[in-house]
Amino acid sequence: MSSERDGVRDWMEEIAWSAGGLVSVVVQDAMTGRILMSACMNREALALTVETGEAHYWSRSRQRLWRKGEESGHVQKVKELRLDCDGDAVLLSIEQAGSIACHTGRERCFFRRYEDGRWVVTDPVLKHPDEIYPKRSSASKGPR
Amino acid sequence: MSSERDGVRDWMEEIAWSAGGLVSVVVQDAMTGRILMSACMNREALALTVETGEAHYWSRSRQRLWRKGEESGHVQKVKELRLDCDGDAVLLSIEQAGSIACHTGRERCFFRRYEDGRWVVTDPVLKHPDEIYPKRSSASKGPR
Repeated sequence: MSSERDGVRDWMEEIAWSAGGLVSVVVQDAMTGRILMSACMNREALALTVETGEAHYWSRSRQRLWRKGEESGHVQKVKELRLDCDGDAVLLSIEQAGSIACHTGRERCFFRRYEDGRWVVTDPVLKHPDEIYPKRSSASKGPR
Repeated sequence: MSSERDGVRDWMEEIAWSAGGLVSVVVQDAMTGRILMSACMNREALALTVETGEAHYWSRSRQRLWRKGEESGHVQKVKELRLDCDGDAVLLSIEQAGSIACHTGRERCFFRRYEDGRWVVTDPVLKHPDEIYPKRSSASKGPR
């Protein structure tokens, strides 16, 4: 599905987009090496990420484009973008504004560790979600 | 969809399995912090991973359970297992046998970096795939 344009292969089409037009994205903190979150992008989100240097995703729960930090201020500045061997996963290395990537107010979404048959919360809440998202009722869910 | 068994919540059912019974897995080298690969697990693969301490995945291309390293010897010893906030991604921290995670013979699957409109290969092949998978013709694809 690659196209040639003036001899330049279209890098977007080297990605093995899913039937729904999405690709998995792993987000790593460029400073600490920690995995902060996992998300999805569609073509528009990826194009905007590259153009602006700030991470954009496709929100499956809200079915819309989402600029990370648009409400929370927890913007992700992109340092590096990588593609895996079979083209179905992108790795973003980023600088995390506010040191909070998770909508629960934690540094990272992977705040639970498996221990003897259960998931144990290991990471503290750095900022309460009500402070991060003051416009939302506490009942609404999902990162922004 | 959680079940209670003798008061212990079933940790497997805290995972937001996809309609196809899969969960995304991000695989990180416990020593270097590098992201080595991205894969999928079904319930059986996750159970075996926890039971044996070695990473097992579900191969979508071959539609079968796959013990990482079963053919290549590039086994992954699990050091830590994490779950993200919405339960649809697992993070494996592992020790990589042979320092090769990718079926192309590279350390990691994310060996291409985005640079000015193209994906540039940045990582060397450490071992030729024909040496890693001697039983296979070079035409066959996919990691083992």
